Amino acid sequence: MKINVGIIGFGTVGTGTARILTENRDIIKEKTGLDIELLKVADLDIERDRGISLPSHILTTDAMGDVIGNPDIHVVVELIGGINPAKDFIVKAIQSGKHVVTANKALLATEGAEIFDEARNRGVILGYEASVAGGIPIIKVIREGLVANRILSIYGIINGTSNYILTRMLEEKMDFHDALREAQELGYAEADPTFDIEGIDTAHKLTLLASLSFGIPLSYDHIYTEGISRITAQDIEFAMELGYKIKLLAIAKAVDREVEIRVHPTMIPENYLISKVDGVLNAVYVVGDAVGETLYYGRGAGDMPTGSAVVSDIVDIARKITIGCNVSEDIQFMGKRTDIRVKPMGEVESKYYFRFTAIDRPGVLSKISGVLGRHQISIAAVIQKGRSIGGAVPLVLLTHKARESDVQKAIKEIDTLDVVDGRTMVIRVEGDED
Amino acid sequence: MKINVGIIGFGTVGTGTARILTENRDIIKEKTGLDIELLKVADLDIERDRGISLPSHILTTDAMGDVIGNPDIHVVVELIGGINPAKDFIVKAIQSGKHVVTANKALLATEGAEIFDEARNRGVILGYEASVAGGIPIIKVIREGLVANRILSIYGIINGTSNYILTRMLEEKMDFHDALREAQELGYAEADPTFDIEGIDTAHKLTLLASLSFGIPLSYDHIYTEGISRITAQDIEFAMELGYKIKLLAIAKAVDREVEIRVHPTMIPENYLISKVDGVLNAVYVVGDAVGETLYYGRGAGDMPTGSAVVSDIVDIARKITIGCNVSEDIQFMGKRTDIRVKPMGEVESKYYFRFTAIDRPGVLSKISGVLGRHQISIAAVIQKGRSIGGAVPLVLLTHKARESDVQKAIKEIDTLDVVDGRTMVIRVEGDED
Repeated sequence: MKINVGIIGFGTVGTGTARILTENRDIIKEKTGLDIELLKVADLDIERDRGISLPSHILTTDAMGDVIGNPDIHVVVELIGGINPAKDFIVKAIQSGKHVVTANKALLATEGAEIFDEARNRGVILGYEASVAGGIPIIKVIREGLVANRILSIYGIINGTSNYILTRMLEEKMDFHDALREAQELGYAEADPTFDIEGIDTAHKLTLLASLSFGIPLSYDHIYTEGISRITAQDIEFAMELGYKIKLLAIAKAVDREVEIRVHPTMIPENYLISKVDGVLNAVYVVGDAVGETLYYGRGAGDMPTGSAVVSDIVDIARKITIGCNVSEDIQFMGKRTDIRVKPMGEVESKYYFRFTAIDRPGVLSKISGVLGRHQISIAAVIQKGRSIGGAVPLVLLTHKARESDVQKAIKEIDTLDVVDGRTMVIRVEGDED
Repeated sequence: MKINVGIIGFGTVGTGTARILTENRDIIKEKTGLDIELLKVADLDIERDRGISLPSHILTTDAMGDVIGNPDIHVVVELIGGINPAKDFIVKAIQSGKHVVTANKALLATEGAEIFDEARNRGVILGYEASVAGGIPIIKVIREGLVANRILSIYGIINGTSNYILTRMLEEKMDFHDALREAQELGYAEADPTFDIEGIDTAHKLTLLASLSFGIPLSYDHIYTEGISRITAQDIEFAMELGYKIKLLAIAKAVDREVEIRVHPTMIPENYLISKVDGVLNAVYVVGDAVGETLYYGRGAGDMPTGSAVVSDIVDIARKITIGCNVSEDIQFMGKRTDIRVKPMGEVESKYYFRFTAIDRPGVLSKISGVLGRHQISIAAVIQKGRSIGGAVPLVLLTHKARESDVQKAIKEIDTLDVVDGRTMVIRVEGDED
């Protein structure tokens, strides 16, 4: 039996997927016995040279007619990204009884509930391995490899662009804007980098991981999201001095009947493995009650790594069709649990790094520590260096565990003091639990 | 539909598996819809306290009658280890139409061909996730997650005992025997540590990974295997000085129609992620043509991590049974390819570290380098330190790429020179390709 695939979207990932399906068709058949053929690739632009030669009858501009409406196609692969018309294509494909594979984390995170429901109702498979951490098979690992575990927590670097920027800021003591410009020149960041640098892309992916791991509904709107655009080279240097690296971390932790889900720049002890994950690479820690800590590392983006994930979903579907599984009876954990609450950010506890821009005169530290003390925030370490009598100097504090709402109140109060100048930098600190 | 499981072997992993199947039965059902019940646990000793309370009707001393011969049991889990009677139990279980899950790498690596054939002929599934790298779902990752890829190479630390010993030798400047004794006291090494320290356990696991990745027959007999028992604290220190760590590495590389498969102590650049994998932890790099470099990290042994892998296999089988897949049509790559040759060790090329015990007198370096030169081995770095006129001093050389057979000939010749004392230490060097 031959399984036929149609791709909608002939961009970077579409090209990688088409390349793998054609160039590795033989090896996939040899490994699995499955014969998978790329029947159609739809895009508005089928003229541009993508560096891959496909027979011209494969290319089409009519996604609806030639892919979704094509009775020979078993699996529709949506790789155009964005909300519309991607959503319409996916829903129509499901309604036509096609299995669907997508890399569209933005769509699934924000409007996925409806799409997953539709797939469940129609008894088709919706594969989304490629939507999180590119080529790393993290969805399969959590759903199947670690299925025996109660997932306790997830910590991930799942946005290559922001990790590249932070890496360059550290390596070259660059400031944020120079590192961003370099990332854009290299094609690692888009012209409008908002989704990547403000943590939105990371939050989309974390939405999927948290739902898969804890069985909660897709909770994008409940995720605290903070990006890296306010991080300075100075913060990175202070972090180093204190034994930490700064990474944009996706965090999901189960605590009793609650989960913390948050995305923010995070200081991680530099001897942790995840601190060594540099450049555009991704890594995800998954902690399970039986397996303990595990880590998965690889390329989180790019035509071929992401294509590898897309094709793994296609092969899974092809296998299930070929060996006659009743896929409509395959139950997915995702989104069924409603008894678990996403903890409001104000209730989260963390250790903190504060960088105050202090006016260099007597009594500054006492004023600041006084405010912190009144909000139940206790100090673990202080760095004050350089002198600029009457001018501004950085004053860095590390705290013990404190409550986010207390921290927000304290910082708001401190930022109005006459001994500080400008907004205080706040970075949460993970690891080395006290 | 309820899926019933019988375990044979109530040791460490058997206990972990029983614990997960009972304590996490609800969460597994919630995630997957699958109801999996532990029906029987067989062991010769059912009196000893394992710290887990199972209803007494579950325990039996009659593996053949109450587990394999039990018509209610769908999945037989073999966790006694060793060749016999494990093999007999597995073969009988397969012949009785049971699906089988095992963690028995020694058996599969050496007599697996017959067992895999039997399973194929009877149309049952043989799960062996737990046999490599404990809780890390490396088998699933290679077989399914990276199925779209031609696997190019694998590099792994897959024996926790030897990694623990090497880590302690580095951290505490301990010698090998002290570190081994400590590992034994902590329960990380067995009374007879041969399998772990001589690389045999690593070679068993690599046999399975290589066969799965490259589709070649199980090739345990063709794997070059060298353990860590000759490594000294001094070698570890010289390695550090040269920017390397020493790890017992399992290596499998595809080169044209050949594969290199080998296990030996290996110097790896210390800035590589795998160099940071310390203690009893395991990590496996898998490099695919589409996905590039990926890494998987976690606990490679222990009751609960290994139990996590065993149960993931059980759940996979339970799913396939429950949704009515024709599992006998599910084709496995493993062992089908006969056109790929395992490259003889003599033909392998590598960079090398040599530590000579040189007699401290003029002309030593010239004599040694003369022999190396005549065997086409060129020197990349030299360390000679300390003086002991007329006595023995260590002389360390790093080479450029050389051929193993040339190296063996050169070292044999050098070891007979009057300017060297004792056997030369040879460690292969990976990474930083020239």
